[in-house]
Amino acid sequence: MQIEVLPSTGSPRTPYLEERLVIVIDVLRATSTIVTALANGCQAIIPVLTPQEALERRLTLPGSLLGGERDSLIIEGFDLSNSPFDYVPEKVGGRRVILTTTNGTRAIRDSIAAPMIWMASFINMQSIVSAVLSEFETNKKLQGIVVYCAGTEERFDLADTLCAGMFIDALGPNVVLNDLGTAARMLYHSSEDQLVDIIRDSDHGKKLISLGLEKDLVYCATPNILPIVPVVQDGEIVWLTEQ
Amino acid sequence: MQIEVLPSTGSPRTPYLEERLVIVIDVLRATSTIVTALANGCQAIIPVLTPQEALERRLTLPGSLLGGERDSLIIEGFDLSNSPFDYVPEKVGGRRVILTTTNGTRAIRDSIAAPMIWMASFINMQSIVSAVLSEFETNKKLQGIVVYCAGTEERFDLADTLCAGMFIDALGPNVVLNDLGTAARMLYHSSEDQLVDIIRDSDHGKKLISLGLEKDLVYCATPNILPIVPVVQDGEIVWLTEQ
Repeated sequence: MQIEVLPSTGSPRTPYLEERLVIVIDVLRATSTIVTALANGCQAIIPVLTPQEALERRLTLPGSLLGGERDSLIIEGFDLSNSPFDYVPEKVGGRRVILTTTNGTRAIRDSIAAPMIWMASFINMQSIVSAVLSEFETNKKLQGIVVYCAGTEERFDLADTLCAGMFIDALGPNVVLNDLGTAARMLYHSSEDQLVDIIRDSDHGKKLISLGLEKDLVYCATPNILPIVPVVQDGEIVWLTEQ
Repeated sequence: MQIEVLPSTGSPRTPYLEERLVIVIDVLRATSTIVTALANGCQAIIPVLTPQEALERRLTLPGSLLGGERDSLIIEGFDLSNSPFDYVPEKVGGRRVILTTTNGTRAIRDSIAAPMIWMASFINMQSIVSAVLSEFETNKKLQGIVVYCAGTEERFDLADTLCAGMFIDALGPNVVLNDLGTAARMLYHSSEDQLVDIIRDSDHGKKLISLGLEKDLVYCATPNILPIVPVVQDGEIVWLTEQ
């Protein structure tokens, strides 16, 4: 299985996405929050690039909520921040959320040329790995995987890369990796027992802690909490169901 | 000491370079070749972006040689490839070399806003580390280091990142790192005994081996062969001498 890992949005080289399964990772916090929202009954998440686009989109989707962040904080006039703890059943159950974040929703939108876009995080790792292995067993059209780490403001992000490394490691030895994929797996191997501590010390981790959001970080760095595989279908992110 | 590591040329975010010492790393092979050329008596290396620029530059520098590569191979009409083994005393002694490579010379030229641009590789590691520590002891204007990994065709490169990790590790514990710097040091720690093997398996390593250039790779992956610190002075790369 051919796997190419991208370090962040804004990467100068966009890989070939045809016949590829794209796995978007934004551990802190977009993909962790999306997993949580779906697990808590959110009907669908609509990824958009800007707060303005979110406001315009809501006009066509009455009853939907606005969620997301700029500079890690809730956007003025929005219903939800980018914290997974905002996405509780009482708020998101049965509703659509229009979401805009600095890194994660941009990575999802950048991947739009791919036939399949799925979302990974530590909290849904076991489920995404099982789903990917099962998809490659049955879908012979797929030529490989692009792991799109959202990064932090167009920069390499340690949490995303470690998550990519855990994902690659779980797929087993029959993988062909680009250099960043090899590095991600090495980084995961050298730190799998201290994930939370390393993410605490990362640039994005330190920023969240400084904003009082350490609880978010610890939750997002915990593997295998929720059995959810978010997938893009017709521009909306929904829960993958057996086909 | 604040250290920011960049993954490759073409990175979307160029850091602040004022009052920074930039360390350019292109293990395979530009900075290794530059170190070797200077050790073998080359008078100066002039980094240029394109073969055309090299040809034009030679018109103003009679007696100089043209060196470099495209797609890892010597450029038609040039005197020297990008192999360190081309830069022997009989060829480069006492002469200037105008050099253009895909990644390394571009990274050097990208750094031109910095007051100091030095070059690192495995082969001159001990010397560059000593020179950096000594510079920071005496030059109180310097605010930090930008380690500019040239990468491979605008992508993350494992050899460059491991070299950055060895460099950071050698500077000791009093460093403040961005996420890629932390990752580089972790990668180096987890593989310092198998550098050559890991670089053999990297994307760029495999390419050089496929072209019959494994000898270059093994040489470039060997630490501490030459006591040379290449520095940019007035647009030319020369040997750092005691000030």
